[in-house]
Amino acid sequence: MSKLLIVGTVAFDAIETPFGKTDKILGGAGTYIGLAAQKFGVNSAIVSVVGGDFPQKYIDIFHEKSINIDGLEVIQDGKTFFWSGRYHNDMNTRDTLDTQLNVLENFDPVVPDAFQDAEVVMLGNLHPAVQMGVINQVKQPKLIILDTMNFWMDHTLSELKEVIAKVDVITINDEEARQLSGEYSLVKAARAIEEMGPKYVVIKKGEHGALLFDKNEMFFAPALPLEEVFDPTGAGDTFAGGFAGYLAKTQDYSFANMKKAIIYGSNLASFCVEKFGTERMLNLEDQEIEERLKVFKSLTQFEIDLN
Amino acid sequence: MSKLLIVGTVAFDAIETPFGKTDKILGGAGTYIGLAAQKFGVNSAIVSVVGGDFPQKYIDIFHEKSINIDGLEVIQDGKTFFWSGRYHNDMNTRDTLDTQLNVLENFDPVVPDAFQDAEVVMLGNLHPAVQMGVINQVKQPKLIILDTMNFWMDHTLSELKEVIAKVDVITINDEEARQLSGEYSLVKAARAIEEMGPKYVVIKKGEHGALLFDKNEMFFAPALPLEEVFDPTGAGDTFAGGFAGYLAKTQDYSFANMKKAIIYGSNLASFCVEKFGTERMLNLEDQEIEERLKVFKSLTQFEIDLN
Repeated sequence: MSKLLIVGTVAFDAIETPFGKTDKILGGAGTYIGLAAQKFGVNSAIVSVVGGDFPQKYIDIFHEKSINIDGLEVIQDGKTFFWSGRYHNDMNTRDTLDTQLNVLENFDPVVPDAFQDAEVVMLGNLHPAVQMGVINQVKQPKLIILDTMNFWMDHTLSELKEVIAKVDVITINDEEARQLSGEYSLVKAARAIEEMGPKYVVIKKGEHGALLFDKNEMFFAPALPLEEVFDPTGAGDTFAGGFAGYLAKTQDYSFANMKKAIIYGSNLASFCVEKFGTERMLNLEDQEIEERLKVFKSLTQFEIDLN
Repeated sequence: MSKLLIVGTVAFDAIETPFGKTDKILGGAGTYIGLAAQKFGVNSAIVSVVGGDFPQKYIDIFHEKSINIDGLEVIQDGKTFFWSGRYHNDMNTRDTLDTQLNVLENFDPVVPDAFQDAEVVMLGNLHPAVQMGVINQVKQPKLIILDTMNFWMDHTLSELKEVIAKVDVITINDEEARQLSGEYSLVKAARAIEEMGPKYVVIKKGEHGALLFDKNEMFFAPALPLEEVFDPTGAGDTFAGGFAGYLAKTQDYSFANMKKAIIYGSNLASFCVEKFGTERMLNLEDQEIEERLKVFKSLTQFEIDLN
């Protein structure tokens, strides 16, 4: 069992979907990554920052789930990062209604002593300078996984490229892969991004699944077709957290094992979208995960004998 | 080995892509379906209509490929159906530049005597009245597969629904499935369409693959991620032709065998897009098909043991 170090936002989200709306609820990339990885029983820690308005009941959740939050800085006279968004009917597009960076604006991450030797590091979507700050505090990690988005490509590309050069795996969506590489074909895009540093490239296509590439191979995991998508918030981070958590648990960073890891990540993401916010992930039983893996198998596995 | 009866357009296409443009070349749904199915060595026939301008060299292609064209009516003083289109840079959207129905306008299909007992019938995208005309001429087929599109939903919905009620399998794209069913979720859409008649629903998602549903199960086949898509024309028909051809060859119409059939269909479609028009399909070797099936296997198959 490896240690898994996670850096990512811990936040308040307010979400509107065609099914309803929420007040400020627990959210953030770090939160979703942590809750997904916790399903594999790994020894994990979240490095993040919140304000004095962050309630004890949310702090308690991390303790209950045995997620180390020694690296969760609380700035008493500051306010927690807040995001508000509204999903359209198709659930694939959303409008951001409000973004208040608050304490995130001057976030200077401090990795707890006990996690400086983490084997797996998951850099959630954040300013590349924060991600680099974490990379600089860890000693000989076996695997660094980077999640990022187009905002950082638009505004901090050179800093982002320095981070990309130092990681083993990058996870981005299809449009971002095209933007970063200048290639329309995802096969060519993945190859171009590998040239920037990462040995493995994971391209997330939302409801259309995810692709995993290394220099020689590719693998595809579909998203599970669902009767109802209730709230897509956190699905990508849950996918990344499941991926990182499975790899940390198994301590096998081969392509063959990463194939399993993205199946586990897709599996967990399929639960995340079934309720608002973190609700489904907080109440997810191991038996449900196992049952749905059977659905994933029957969805994708076939018997064709070749010569 | 079953007989496979195909009804579909045999046409001239003029295609523009970012890679170049063609003069009038051989095209049409019936042509692509026939060429794909022929890869399985089935005894197939195309029912269609062309004009006096249809050249002998294209007629010869069908003979060379052992595709029966006794049901290909030639109207000497008429002109062959013509379609012209331009693909955008992303290859997922296209503008139709010209459509000339010509001899197709009054097409009254006649199924050759030798194919009235065909076990598998593939109804390519055409006016529902033409499709029904073919259904009425076949005796006890084992499997009828219907391909259609939004145009017929917009203009001839009640006729289309009569055809849908009589077929075993329907293949449509995701937007068409939503339009036909009024359901956004593809899982719900498939269920609603099954209520209209077909036991099996195949939802084509282009570069995002294809889903197969029956009442209890679902299966997903990805499209092969390619370095370059040269010309998408005919990919959907090639997919359908591969699907129908494999089923006709194996004479097994179970869900388990349909899973293999959509993998074979996806595999053939991945070749079709590599060159303009039918060029790649005309020169495709069995060994290449087999090699690429290995890529499909490594793309999708994983080992996770479940309790």
